[in-house]
Amino acid sequence: VNLRIPGPIPVPDDILETMSNPMINHRGPEFKEILFRVTDGLKQVFDTESDVYILTASGTGAMEAAIVNTLSPGDKALNATVGVFGERFGKIAELFGAKVTTLGFPYGTAIDPDKLREALNADPDIKAVLVTQNETSTGVTNDMEAVSRVVKGEFDKLLLVDGISSVCSIPMQTDGWGCDVVASASQKGWMLPPGLAFVSFSQRAWKAHAEATMPRYYFDMAMYRRYFEMGQPPYTPAVSLMFALDLALSKILAEGIGSVFERHASIGQMTRDGVRGLGLSIFPKEESIASNTCTAVAVPDGVDGTRLLTLMRTEHGVVLAGGQGSLSGKIFRIGHMGYTTSEDIEGVVRALSVVLPQVGFAAARARARRS
Amino acid sequence: VNLRIPGPIPVPDDILETMSNPMINHRGPEFKEILFRVTDGLKQVFDTESDVYILTASGTGAMEAAIVNTLSPGDKALNATVGVFGERFGKIAELFGAKVTTLGFPYGTAIDPDKLREALNADPDIKAVLVTQNETSTGVTNDMEAVSRVVKGEFDKLLLVDGISSVCSIPMQTDGWGCDVVASASQKGWMLPPGLAFVSFSQRAWKAHAEATMPRYYFDMAMYRRYFEMGQPPYTPAVSLMFALDLALSKILAEGIGSVFERHASIGQMTRDGVRGLGLSIFPKEESIASNTCTAVAVPDGVDGTRLLTLMRTEHGVVLAGGQGSLSGKIFRIGHMGYTTSEDIEGVVRALSVVLPQVGFAAARARARRS
Repeated sequence: VNLRIPGPIPVPDDILETMSNPMINHRGPEFKEILFRVTDGLKQVFDTESDVYILTASGTGAMEAAIVNTLSPGDKALNATVGVFGERFGKIAELFGAKVTTLGFPYGTAIDPDKLREALNADPDIKAVLVTQNETSTGVTNDMEAVSRVVKGEFDKLLLVDGISSVCSIPMQTDGWGCDVVASASQKGWMLPPGLAFVSFSQRAWKAHAEATMPRYYFDMAMYRRYFEMGQPPYTPAVSLMFALDLALSKILAEGIGSVFERHASIGQMTRDGVRGLGLSIFPKEESIASNTCTAVAVPDGVDGTRLLTLMRTEHGVVLAGGQGSLSGKIFRIGHMGYTTSEDIEGVVRALSVVLPQVGFAAARARARRS
Repeated sequence: VNLRIPGPIPVPDDILETMSNPMINHRGPEFKEILFRVTDGLKQVFDTESDVYILTASGTGAMEAAIVNTLSPGDKALNATVGVFGERFGKIAELFGAKVTTLGFPYGTAIDPDKLREALNADPDIKAVLVTQNETSTGVTNDMEAVSRVVKGEFDKLLLVDGISSVCSIPMQTDGWGCDVVASASQKGWMLPPGLAFVSFSQRAWKAHAEATMPRYYFDMAMYRRYFEMGQPPYTPAVSLMFALDLALSKILAEGIGSVFERHASIGQMTRDGVRGLGLSIFPKEESIASNTCTAVAVPDGVDGTRLLTLMRTEHGVVLAGGQGSLSGKIFRIGHMGYTTSEDIEGVVRALSVVLPQVGFAAARARARRS
């Protein structure tokens, strides 16, 4: 099976196998060594000298952690969103009592730094800005450096980043771009199964934490900090996934993070070239904002997107993702984060070339040509 | 290594190996089958016809879920606590804004139903009662049937139960005892690595949920219910642990849950007999309340508990747990939940018989005999 969704992605065999190692005491010396080593590795990938903590949770848990550890009910937050996961980030902030102003950009486009500046000028009381670095629901990557120049450089706001599907795949300079909290999750570029989430936490985030009154317990970063000093997690961690993280990080750092980014860029380009070669269009409005971890493809007029995905899965063993929310039926998505080879992508393109005519795409093109 | 802490516990090889299976789409048909099958199995073990949901979290996350899904800030809750985990349960409720009355019983004792009745009579506004079925910090199991007779039978309050280290090891009649929410976690009797938590949710809990205003997103049971209807989890689940859960439940149900309980009772008895045979005393004040998943043993006067545990680990490969909080240095704990054999316990007792004299226990006994 060629699992090509935006996470979970296939995991290398040696990483899968390390999860069969026997349990150890999460409060003992062996675990302490692993915790310190993987935390050091995570900091290298996040490109930060600040803290990075490991949660037993999905990425959504890490998004909640970013919010509840830095904001108080009534705090104003600007949610610069370009898709479904951006909307979720704002929703979490709202549910916990923040006053959220939504700066929504049309699906398929990226954050416009000028509009971000306008929104921040319009309300000086805004305390934090929420941003999704890589929006898998639309296959768009925001320019975090440009976002940071406005949010930090011009306004010095708290910058909370959903980096779930970007960190370890797409360059993220946590410190360099002044990102106060960056959330990520294991089933993305990290080449791991789902179950762990990672949260970076800057000194500025700690200052915000000291004043933040949103209720938190399981996701309270202060607990993670206090226990980390003893070489322990505050709550029983997913030990098997920690073994896997340890091996994955050693592979990633041995390859070199720059090479990991290049690999993603090259696989992303290959995927876009492949689908365009079939006569399809990518969903993002410009090539320059297309994600290197997940390619969103427009379902052509007259094609049943659900049938397309079903045939890809049942006839060719290629598992793709559909569109979410209002994009359901309008796009399909090809995940290529983490452990993805050019053969994997060739397999997707080959299978599409067989299935597309079966779901009426060739016919649609022929009609277009005739008219 | 003989890992004998109150979780994680050793996991059978076939369950460990199933975690090396390749990733699958958590929104596809294969995962749907697994989700429905394991949920059905969980309901059998929880002994409930109500809902049971699976969280990617430690047990503490499930405790938070029990609170935030049923209570509002300002709601009164009675926390009947017998140890560290009971205190944590009350702390979570307080942090999220509940007005918590603590009914604390001395460490080493169990909940006294008469005092519970008094406390509930003293404040008719109490909405919910928090109870730990099995308190691993003191090695005490509360009589949930007796607790239920008061909380549900006499007062009909919302009953929120921390069953993290009891469900699947010690009888729990979720429906029969009217437990509205019961939280458990994978690294206990379930014979699994940590990383999954389970939450049962009664119809009464759903009624409370409709009115409960504590903020929640990641742990909002309504999201789990809505997605479950589509055969999906709301957020990306720990897929490898779901494979493991599937196999563990098939083993547990094949053995028969009654036999699982008997096995725990017999191993618990064997452990208590073994440590008493060495001249040690169990920490719980009465045999009848001693836990069958975790035996707390009093550190004898004059013995350095830390040195005892270090020698057990380094010289004999037996990993025990110390005491938590104010019990640090006063007790040590032997975990025997889940996949524990009589050979495992014999190994603990044998190693203790060697180490105890080395840390001055024989000498202490001799002195006592002389005086």
